[in-house]
Amino acid sequence: MKIKRALISVSDKTGIVDFAKELQNLGIEIISTGGTYNYLAQNGVNALKIEDVTGFPELLNGRVKTLHPKILAGILAVRDNPEHIQQLNKFGILPIDLVVVNLYPFSSFISEGDVKFEDAIEQIDIGGVTLLRASAKNYKYVAGVVNPKRYGEIISELKSNGCELSERTRLSLAIEIFQHTSDYDARIANFLFSQLTEDVLPSVFHLNLVKIKNLRYGENPHQRGAIYGDFFNYFEQLHGKELSYNNILDISSATELVLEFDKPACAIVKHTNPCGVGVDDKSILEAFKKAFATDTISPFGGIIAFNRPLDLKTAIEIDGIFSEVIIAPDFPSDVLNFLSHKKNRRLIRYKGVDIKKFDFDFKKVIGGVLVQEVDNVDLEPMNLKVVTRRKPTVDEMEALIFAWKVVKHVKSNAIVYARRDRTLGIGAGQMSRLDASRIAVMKAKEMGHDLRGSVVASDAFFPFPDALIEAIKAGATAVIQPGGSIRDEEVIKIADEYNIAMVFTGIRHFKH
Amino acid sequence: MKIKRALISVSDKTGIVDFAKELQNLGIEIISTGGTYNYLAQNGVNALKIEDVTGFPELLNGRVKTLHPKILAGILAVRDNPEHIQQLNKFGILPIDLVVVNLYPFSSFISEGDVKFEDAIEQIDIGGVTLLRASAKNYKYVAGVVNPKRYGEIISELKSNGCELSERTRLSLAIEIFQHTSDYDARIANFLFSQLTEDVLPSVFHLNLVKIKNLRYGENPHQRGAIYGDFFNYFEQLHGKELSYNNILDISSATELVLEFDKPACAIVKHTNPCGVGVDDKSILEAFKKAFATDTISPFGGIIAFNRPLDLKTAIEIDGIFSEVIIAPDFPSDVLNFLSHKKNRRLIRYKGVDIKKFDFDFKKVIGGVLVQEVDNVDLEPMNLKVVTRRKPTVDEMEALIFAWKVVKHVKSNAIVYARRDRTLGIGAGQMSRLDASRIAVMKAKEMGHDLRGSVVASDAFFPFPDALIEAIKAGATAVIQPGGSIRDEEVIKIADEYNIAMVFTGIRHFKH
Repeated sequence: MKIKRALISVSDKTGIVDFAKELQNLGIEIISTGGTYNYLAQNGVNALKIEDVTGFPELLNGRVKTLHPKILAGILAVRDNPEHIQQLNKFGILPIDLVVVNLYPFSSFISEGDVKFEDAIEQIDIGGVTLLRASAKNYKYVAGVVNPKRYGEIISELKSNGCELSERTRLSLAIEIFQHTSDYDARIANFLFSQLTEDVLPSVFHLNLVKIKNLRYGENPHQRGAIYGDFFNYFEQLHGKELSYNNILDISSATELVLEFDKPACAIVKHTNPCGVGVDDKSILEAFKKAFATDTISPFGGIIAFNRPLDLKTAIEIDGIFSEVIIAPDFPSDVLNFLSHKKNRRLIRYKGVDIKKFDFDFKKVIGGVLVQEVDNVDLEPMNLKVVTRRKPTVDEMEALIFAWKVVKHVKSNAIVYARRDRTLGIGAGQMSRLDASRIAVMKAKEMGHDLRGSVVASDAFFPFPDALIEAIKAGATAVIQPGGSIRDEEVIKIADEYNIAMVFTGIRHFKH
Repeated sequence: MKIKRALISVSDKTGIVDFAKELQNLGIEIISTGGTYNYLAQNGVNALKIEDVTGFPELLNGRVKTLHPKILAGILAVRDNPEHIQQLNKFGILPIDLVVVNLYPFSSFISEGDVKFEDAIEQIDIGGVTLLRASAKNYKYVAGVVNPKRYGEIISELKSNGCELSERTRLSLAIEIFQHTSDYDARIANFLFSQLTEDVLPSVFHLNLVKIKNLRYGENPHQRGAIYGDFFNYFEQLHGKELSYNNILDISSATELVLEFDKPACAIVKHTNPCGVGVDDKSILEAFKKAFATDTISPFGGIIAFNRPLDLKTAIEIDGIFSEVIIAPDFPSDVLNFLSHKKNRRLIRYKGVDIKKFDFDFKKVIGGVLVQEVDNVDLEPMNLKVVTRRKPTVDEMEALIFAWKVVKHVKSNAIVYARRDRTLGIGAGQMSRLDASRIAVMKAKEMGHDLRGSVVASDAFFPFPDALIEAIKAGATAVIQPGGSIRDEEVIKIADEYNIAMVFTGIRHFKH
């Protein structure tokens, strides 16, 4: 299928002159529309005007210009169907073999802040979408190009292939077109929806993310996996083996956790749950030691994240334990040199770019997807409500806020025992709150932590007093939890009996 | 804006005759295309033929029939723009105020099993999409209807509103159109992609899901949440309070788990983890009792799922415990009546539709999305490798396979103690495998389960022998695990020392 005739109608003129000139040099005839025709003419490219092909003028200020049976049949004709070819001949319709169209930039237009609604509507492309979809439907005979980045590759192939494009190329172009039009219409639907209602959750949940790369495998070796989007806008790998699917998941969890803290902080994560978290007024080394002391066994093979540049002292300290990934906002060259002696260990620089949070979090379920706003409400100390007779001391309050920040990042049911600068025991992912509490205590005791005078955070309210009683027995003196159980009174009564200070946050942090 | 003229061109003819007759009774003129024109004529509805409006015949076996400037300008003209109206008059173009179009059923066509590629391509609608998008772009003046379910509402409004539709109605119709075309093109893109490459992970990860409804809130009350897609193609709510975000998440987890089993089975789930699972050769009641016996405390407020219709005996038994949701493939009327006495408890019928699994699982991370194939590899008993001197007995092997099916659905690190028909202790979501094992033992003992002669499943290999030693101490006699640790030999040696039977699956089941 030699390409003999091209239709060019582009909103984004990037590279179009060079592309059109190359086409012309290859002897390909060009048909073009209003603005594109003029632009090409000014730059020395001769084209046929579309009106001269259709015999019909442009109507309604350009709202109708390409939508004519002579154009559509020229694109859609099945080249090896004699009846189709006969009809083209009968009506003097020129076959069009290459369709080069990109669309009014609806999406970038509406994201430019203060947009007049009527102007946005004019940015909805009708003719362009139709030409592209027609070419993509008929990709067995026709090539459609929506992406200016592919001009170069197309010219190369035409040149090296006797003015033909392979079926594989045409198919890949067609896929790009349907991806593009799908994305385009989803954005329009969501824009119109935002005009209809105050609802923040869009009428269509739409993701359209380009693959960064295939990973060695997914969550498990028998599942293929890949990473999509802009992950590497936020993270740079400085050293070590290729990141795995589970590494990326843990890097994300660990970084979100460590960014909760203003003071120098360290978090050690395994299977998306923290094994330990520490903060220090000055020293990242101390922060690490506190995090590690929480649980010296689980960090084996884990992810260690810092919110401050690494220094050599700290690097030497963490070198001793086997970790898969170390994350920090910076690795000075001495640190990088030192840590690089382990070939496989991945060193990841968190670029410090403000995480432009996804507006939405989402989870796959059978037949659908759950979508929600991300859980990014910060704790406002003034919204904390002391519900017991005794108020927390200043130290207790600091510890409560620290523990609350950690428990937000532990899978539910979650219980965290802590002091003001370190976790002591973390109970994660349990089907009952009581078990989460017990596990936290069990782990703390095993590591020799004295829980007397510690505080406890619970990601959701205590449905019964049992988990509180467990905490009191262990020696905790202050508790932070959302409140809101029908048994709150009973729970508060027991806290008062034991002179425990308890604060309600009014906010729950379930995480699944 | 009185509606005077409608264009009707529908692939799905549901309700179209009644709708067209009502339009005609309201004095609305109808223009129609080939098949629809004939169908309407046979049913006593007079219409103008589209060829008579355009003066141009249908071309290319119907590939080109509606795409004519006289039609598009009739739809797209801005009614209060004098220049536009003047152009319509000049070219004798009839304004079209109502566009009733639905598309070639591409999606249902390709899902009908063995599809010829050329036939699928013919199902890509070009003209219909263009007419719909044009009407939606010009919704300020024109109504476009893609969904036959809205015919009734439109007729009512026209009748009660002097043959007009409100702007709000027209806008909501326009949103529906762009949602529909976006979805339509995404399905085409994915279909074409599957023709292009063996790489199962697409170059662009694309989701395009229409909102089913807003939920009361998301994972937590301060997050807004909604469910998108086709969840209710799989589940029907028969009774009870509205489903919450977390309910839907747990329903999905519990159903996936219970569908692992051929025998009558029951799974009780909290926070996406099973509290207990039971199977029985005959009785769903026995399956429930075994599941519940695993842990009689955690199921409070949980989700109970069955893979067989509920019977009254079982319903009476489960009525005693507080559960948020009960799921079964059927609730006979006596069961439904009985269980409905609790107003809030949600009763969910799993429709038994084969879960047409998403091809992909996906997880949000900072700046991107991790995509992977779903973990749906079935255990092939012949691929199991006995690595110890002693082979598992028949009973042990049955128990190992049962435990393996459960552990796949427990968050990592996961350890499950079981017999051939029931779980005994489940250690979920831990940062170390040893802790998962200990928790499982702790919970089993607390519930009075004797672990002597039980079996253990581990979702990933034992990095050290410690968790195995823990299991042996507890009384387990057989172990199932993926294998693959550099310390496998050491682990096998210890198993042999204690006459434990151990099988390697070669498959890991991390789940985060």
